[in-house]
Amino acid sequence: MTPAETVDAFIGAIERKDVEAAVALVADDCEYDNVPMGAVVGPRAIVDLLGPMIGSCREVDWVVRRQVAQGAVVMNERLDRFSLDGRWVEVPVCGVWEVVDDKIRLWRDYFDLQTFRSQMGG
Amino acid sequence: MTPAETVDAFIGAIERKDVEAAVALVADDCEYDNVPMGAVVGPRAIVDLLGPMIGSCREVDWVVRRQVAQGAVVMNERLDRFSLDGRWVEVPVCGVWEVVDDKIRLWRDYFDLQTFRSQMGG
Repeated sequence: MTPAETVDAFIGAIERKDVEAAVALVADDCEYDNVPMGAVVGPRAIVDLLGPMIGSCREVDWVVRRQVAQGAVVMNERLDRFSLDGRWVEVPVCGVWEVVDDKIRLWRDYFDLQTFRSQMGG
Repeated sequence: MTPAETVDAFIGAIERKDVEAAVALVADDCEYDNVPMGAVVGPRAIVDLLGPMIGSCREVDWVVRRQVAQGAVVMNERLDRFSLDGRWVEVPVCGVWEVVDDKIRLWRDYFDLQTFRSQMGG
């Protein structure tokens, strides 16, 4: 797979709410960095962080608006949509990914935390 | 120039605090979208928004960590640094650019607004 295809497969698994299939695509030392919130490292930490959120959604829809790849780096502009309690929470995101040997080594998302929190009612 | 070179030239002009040289590289209908704050359109609106901020800095240093280009699209991961009142304000940013015929048509920055505001003391 190309790095972009690996990222596409990861996002596809997230949209199927199959977090285990998603993290099967990440390296053991993968860094997942939600920039305003900080980073975690490794598949289990990613499952711990992402699993409850994804599991609480009826649907997950990550719309990729633009995606550009060069070498190991993939960057994408997305609208991450989460169906929660009968409404859609929508977060504009820009993601930076590094993929080596078909495994995601870095996943860093830039977004405005307050845009997310205000929709979560928190 | 390639689209990436046009973006590099724009950022170089910003770092020289030459906002007029920067906007000479944008199209008449260029959209400048600071995602959590909203968008403005056109060179004059960009000068009005950016000029006072850049003018109040002693130094401006936008560190490009990663930059990827494909077709008209350039995306970059940056640390935008502003020297203000003897200290550095630092904002992690992910930028989405579109460049057509050597002119920037879109400049959209994703970042956490509170990360910026808390450093500005506001």
